[in-house]
Amino acid sequence: MEEKLRDHIQNLIPLTDDEFSFILSHFSFEKYKKNDFLIQVEDNVKYCYFVVSGLLKLVYDDTNGKQHIVSFAMEDWWESDFSAYFTQTKAKMSLQCIEDTMVFSLSFKNYQKLLSQLPKMERFFLQKSNAGYISSQNRILSFLTSNAQQRYKQLLKQYPQLFQRVPKTLLASYLGVSRETLSRLSS
Amino acid sequence: MEEKLRDHIQNLIPLTDDEFSFILSHFSFEKYKKNDFLIQVEDNVKYCYFVVSGLLKLVYDDTNGKQHIVSFAMEDWWESDFSAYFTQTKAKMSLQCIEDTMVFSLSFKNYQKLLSQLPKMERFFLQKSNAGYISSQNRILSFLTSNAQQRYKQLLKQYPQLFQRVPKTLLASYLGVSRETLSRLSS
Repeated sequence: MEEKLRDHIQNLIPLTDDEFSFILSHFSFEKYKKNDFLIQVEDNVKYCYFVVSGLLKLVYDDTNGKQHIVSFAMEDWWESDFSAYFTQTKAKMSLQCIEDTMVFSLSFKNYQKLLSQLPKMERFFLQKSNAGYISSQNRILSFLTSNAQQRYKQLLKQYPQLFQRVPKTLLASYLGVSRETLSRLSS
Repeated sequence: MEEKLRDHIQNLIPLTDDEFSFILSHFSFEKYKKNDFLIQVEDNVKYCYFVVSGLLKLVYDDTNGKQHIVSFAMEDWWESDFSAYFTQTKAKMSLQCIEDTMVFSLSFKNYQKLLSQLPKMERFFLQKSNAGYISSQNRILSFLTSNAQQRYKQLLKQYPQLFQRVPKTLLASYLGVSRETLSRLSS
């Protein structure tokens, strides 16, 4: 488990054994079952999560009770209601397991401690954040420029494994189309 | 001019005079006229920009020659084709002046130098990047959950000054609606 986190960080910044032990001491390892919630709406968001294995969905429920999938998070992804995490406010979104899932959780307090005590972690998180920003911009672009069929094909190309692991209803909700439209697209 | 950049950075991290002089030495001050391009599609993207005054549009042209506005950038905003900037590849988007605009530009080389020589700038850019990521996520959410009229109202509430400064055609392109739909919404 620890090795997954270490490899992930070392992809961007070199670490000594001591540095990694120090980093690891800021995280907690947690196991969740399918359908468990890591975050529920109105929770105080204390943690962000590095996914070791499994699959999560970040969900926004609109005022009509309709579910919208903001993102999926699988192995090697970081996830939280980041807006609430960084501002230490209440969750507007929920984070729930689509599969049994193992994570390392990082409290906001420990995130701040880690940044101030091991500045190279600022470099690491800066690179992750930049990458996250770019992929969000690409998703915005796909909403502006692509129709449902094109968005479906882009997702299929980018994350083929999602199509094996995620029920059609959830894929439709991520793409912003109805279940019926998705069936037409994928048939 | 310099004070605007200094205040902007000092909002997040304290700076001595020497530190700010050092930071400033990594930037170039540039003036552009309305309609000038800071970045054109296929350019090597060498710079990101801090907007001192004026207004920019980041534009993606789709294969049908239709313009899509990915973002506007006004005073105190950072803008670039960040995907191309961080990976030092060619621009997929253009960055153009809607008004006469003054910016501080930061080359990718100087960005890297600044981060390694003054680590507190990593903290600064990490906070900016996290904020950018969160606002992108909110925009994704608005595409998933809101219709054109709701998106129009959200934009009006969040950036009332845009409606004074930006032609309707560009607002429509940002919201992902036709010029006619926007006229209906805003009448």
